[in-house]
Amino acid sequence: MNAFKTIGIFSKQNGQQVTDTLQRLYHFLEQKQLGILAAEAPARLLNIPSTPDADIAGQADLIIVVGGDGTLLGAGRLLAETSLPLVGINLGRLGFLVDILPEDLASVLEPILQGAFIEESRCMLTGTAMRGDKILGSSVALNDVVLHARDEIRMIEFTTLINGTFVNTQRADGLIVSTPTGSTAYALSSGGPILHPVLEAIVLVPICAHNLTSRPLVVPASCHIEIQLRDQYPVDSRVSFDGQNNIELIPGDRILIETRHEKMRLLHPLNHDYYHILRTKLHWGKQP
Amino acid sequence: MNAFKTIGIFSKQNGQQVTDTLQRLYHFLEQKQLGILAAEAPARLLNIPSTPDADIAGQADLIIVVGGDGTLLGAGRLLAETSLPLVGINLGRLGFLVDILPEDLASVLEPILQGAFIEESRCMLTGTAMRGDKILGSSVALNDVVLHARDEIRMIEFTTLINGTFVNTQRADGLIVSTPTGSTAYALSSGGPILHPVLEAIVLVPICAHNLTSRPLVVPASCHIEIQLRDQYPVDSRVSFDGQNNIELIPGDRILIETRHEKMRLLHPLNHDYYHILRTKLHWGKQP
Amino acid sequence: MNAFKTIGIFSKQNGQQVTDTLQRLYHFLEQKQLGILAAEAPARLLNIPSTPDADIAGQADLIIVVGGDGTLLGAGRLLAETSLPLVGINLGRLGFLVDILPEDLASVLEPILQGAFIEESRCMLTGTAMRGDKILGSSVALNDVVLHARDEIRMIEFTTLINGTFVNTQRADGLIVSTPTGSTAYALSSGGPILHPVLEAIVLVPICAHNLTSRPLVVPASCHIEIQLRDQYPVDSRVSFDGQNNIELIPGDRILIETRHEKMRLLHPLNHDYYHILRTKLHWGKQP
Amino acid sequence: MNAFKTIGIFSKQNGQQVTDTLQRLYHFLEQKQLGILAAEAPARLLNIPSTPDADIAGQADLIIVVGGDGTLLGAGRLLAETSLPLVGINLGRLGFLVDILPEDLASVLEPILQGAFIEESRCMLTGTAMRGDKILGSSVALNDVVLHARDEIRMIEFTTLINGTFVNTQRADGLIVSTPTGSTAYALSSGGPILHPVLEAIVLVPICAHNLTSRPLVVPASCHIEIQLRDQYPVDSRVSFDGQNNIELIPGDRILIETRHEKMRLLHPLNHDYYHILRTKLHWGKQP
Repeated sequence: MNAFKTIGIFSKQNGQQVTDTLQRLYHFLEQKQLGILAAEAPARLLNIPSTPDADIAGQADLIIVVGGDGTLLGAGRLLAETSLPLVGINLGRLGFLVDILPEDLASVLEPILQGAFIEESRCMLTGTAMRGDKILGSSVALNDVVLHARDEIRMIEFTTLINGTFVNTQRADGLIVSTPTGSTAYALSSGGPILHPVLEAIVLVPICAHNLTSRPLVVPASCHIEIQLRDQYPVDSRVSFDGQNNIELIPGDRILIETRHEKMRLLHPLNHDYYHILRTKLHWGKQP
Repeated sequence: MNAFKTIGIFSKQNGQQVTDTLQRLYHFLEQKQLGILAAEAPARLLNIPSTPDADIAGQADLIIVVGGDGTLLGAGRLLAETSLPLVGINLGRLGFLVDILPEDLASVLEPILQGAFIEESRCMLTGTAMRGDKILGSSVALNDVVLHARDEIRMIEFTTLINGTFVNTQRADGLIVSTPTGSTAYALSSGGPILHPVLEAIVLVPICAHNLTSRPLVVPASCHIEIQLRDQYPVDSRVSFDGQNNIELIPGDRILIETRHEKMRLLHPLNHDYYHILRTKLHWGKQP
Repeated sequence: MNAFKTIGIFSKQNGQQVTDTLQRLYHFLEQKQLGILAAEAPARLLNIPSTPDADIAGQADLIIVVGGDGTLLGAGRLLAETSLPLVGINLGRLGFLVDILPEDLASVLEPILQGAFIEESRCMLTGTAMRGDKILGSSVALNDVVLHARDEIRMIEFTTLINGTFVNTQRADGLIVSTPTGSTAYALSSGGPILHPVLEAIVLVPICAHNLTSRPLVVPASCHIEIQLRDQYPVDSRVSFDGQNNIELIPGDRILIETRHEKMRLLHPLNHDYYHILRTKLHWGKQP
Repeated sequence: MNAFKTIGIFSKQNGQQVTDTLQRLYHFLEQKQLGILAAEAPARLLNIPSTPDADIAGQADLIIVVGGDGTLLGAGRLLAETSLPLVGINLGRLGFLVDILPEDLASVLEPILQGAFIEESRCMLTGTAMRGDKILGSSVALNDVVLHARDEIRMIEFTTLINGTFVNTQRADGLIVSTPTGSTAYALSSGGPILHPVLEAIVLVPICAHNLTSRPLVVPASCHIEIQLRDQYPVDSRVSFDGQNNIELIPGDRILIETRHEKMRLLHPLNHDYYHILRTKLHWGKQP
């Protein structure tokens, strides 16, 4: 009767609350007679043998993540090439991605394990940093690919092309290329709009642009984005992926960004309400 | 060899430049031995018999508009239920929608008439104002459906629902519900992002929200949007469609907005470059 | 031992909470054997004879206002030509101007009446609407002088001069000329900065400017501001003062705005904390 | 008849245009029989002996700067403790501070040297970085004191106090504390308002605040500002002064900022028009 047979567990690395929640999760899954594969961090906290990430990717058919949005982002990036669905248990503070409260763990996971859930497909980006024809590095982003001056006092100058067409050249602290998922993260702090998570779109948000007329630009997810660091403008910069995997850049380097073919499959309880999360996280006034 | 046989002409109502451009257009189309149907305004300026709009809609297979973006919006709304393609000739100042310069009329229309063009499908909205079960009025918008306090000194209070789910209740001067086409119009003045014209999306932009945490929200074009005027808050308001067709509202009234099934078909020359128009209109710094 | 002998009372017009607070205030002042003059609204709620506003202005040496910020603004505008100090009792919801909670009435008023208070001098504006050489009307504003299109769908075009020097010509829904007191009101909703209340400054905030490069502009309080409605641009507009006293304008009209010589004298308890009010009203995250 | 006897010259370090302008300036001043003291950079370009900065500070009674706004900022910071007036010659592109065009050098300097000028007093800040009771460093800023995360991917958390009163605790990329002079520089890129240069005020502008309700805050120039880096939040940061003189900070460090007693004295031609510079630099639409 279970929709899933083998559960892979990822978690935050430490904290009593993580351990407590992991233990309750473990016993709950054991009672259901499900296979359990724990990645290194949860295995250590549960004091059980760990399974290598690659094996979890190959054998599990559902991933449960215990932690904050950042922990789920990490697991999602790790498993980006699989089509494994993820579900997130937070640690008492509702997240945009981890929307099951620890105290509701059993009652909310029960129907999900039986196949009663909402499945959301979320866009992911691949960003590749190039120096001439050489690939400096490449990485996945569920939230955003961020270009930023390395010396935070100085602006960088860069040219953006979309599908090979020149868009503009800007001087700014940087540029955020964000998925809808990332639109409520760094992009929002920089003045970007909120994109509904299922929208097939990418938003480009300049960071402290020196040009007063730059605005956030939302383009179809199918667009290929290229950012060229102007080499007349000798300031070093850096590209990061969900705030991780920094690649150091110099003038003349390029970043190529496109939406991945695979989506992140995120499972929610049937009563999931995205706008409720928005209201809670953004402190929107509730209906009187 | 012509891709089109009968051309319907719409134009601005007056001005020497309109008349000059209309005359050049008329002679050009005559030489091509195309059928020409002129709506009332261009017929008067050309001093020829006019054709009723409904007949143009039924008989033409291409519409040419002479004027600014507002003139093309007007023609587009008039022909919203047809699937007629439109092409726009501006009056010397590049528009977002009317992108053929009068002096390039012949050289740019020539290939378009032979079938060599880029066709863009642009979302249109239908907005319906309701009082209880009674329809107060309904209209089409290519740019935006705008709710605004009628007494501009006082805020209105309204609740937004998307696909029947409560989003938030805001006090504000109003709310702009905009297509990608409208994202560079009033929505931009109110702090909204730029949406690429082919994006299948709607953006909701509050006008002077009293709540500091409101942000523009971009949702899929398939969403049904409902705005409820709170009846505890006795301020009259108004809804308009592309700045036209005002409907007066009172507290308790509702506005239902959805994307129309039909799209506006907009034709562009093969070298059309949306980003060039953005740069020109928004005075983005050109590449050094 | 009292610093004040005769107290003038202004209040909101109705509500059980207003009446209760007024009664407690009345008995408290009676016990102190202070003279009490009630304006029309509080007199009616207290069921005592009222005193004309002009007599209150002439005979009182302290004004106590019961209500919200709007009620205090109203009293302040009425008494703008006197130098009477004001103190505000709110109705359970902290205001920017009315900062005494009803339940603390006695304990907080006691030291104020004995002369132990913080006195803040707040700038007030005078706005005068002109048609040619004719004065259309003139009024006082504690918060803001707001120019706004009368037909809310259409933009107005206006030129701003400061001390006779051309600043710019804008198309917008309107313009807010605000005191520091008003900077947390409508100006904030339109994207203006927060000005500390004692700053000797005026801030000009465009409303939905059609020009992406317009920014809020803060100038010394001594500046003379002139707004000229462009007469090539035939849209009617309106000027209001703290959201009151509308004057209807037509293209070609002018508005002259300057800081009044007199200040509004606002009294606060010795433990008054402006930043606490900002944090509470703007829902700024508290220190963990 | 000259208002000044000895002219100190500062300039940009290189470029043919700098050299040409310096030579024309040198000959012009020689003809006037004025004393000329050249700092190191202009002396090298003019191929004349240089005078140490300290001697220029002691002997000159007017400073002429050839370069951009940044060059004048550098000279201004160097001479912050003197009361020497500065005048700036730009290199073909109008600056906010350097407002004499090279080709107008003679005709514009002539009246200034005779005493016919507008003198503007501009606020300067002193920022001091503290670790416990130890002073890490201290510097002058004409534009801004900027706190910024050193690792540009991570936010910092800091508490702001004004005159010893707690204002708020924010997570952000950083904070800009700016003079009116700096309000058109980095602060503007981060969403700050424009402050008229003679305003006696300081503006605090958060950089990419994680809190949607943070707004630029304008306070009197007399305020003492303290920024405390939260030590529960282990991200390193940096403070800079006009983009120079970086001081590396760790959690727990503090920055104290106050307006200096001395002002920067900036001289302008009698026809100086601040709003003209604003319009030109910010590309504000000119009057039709």
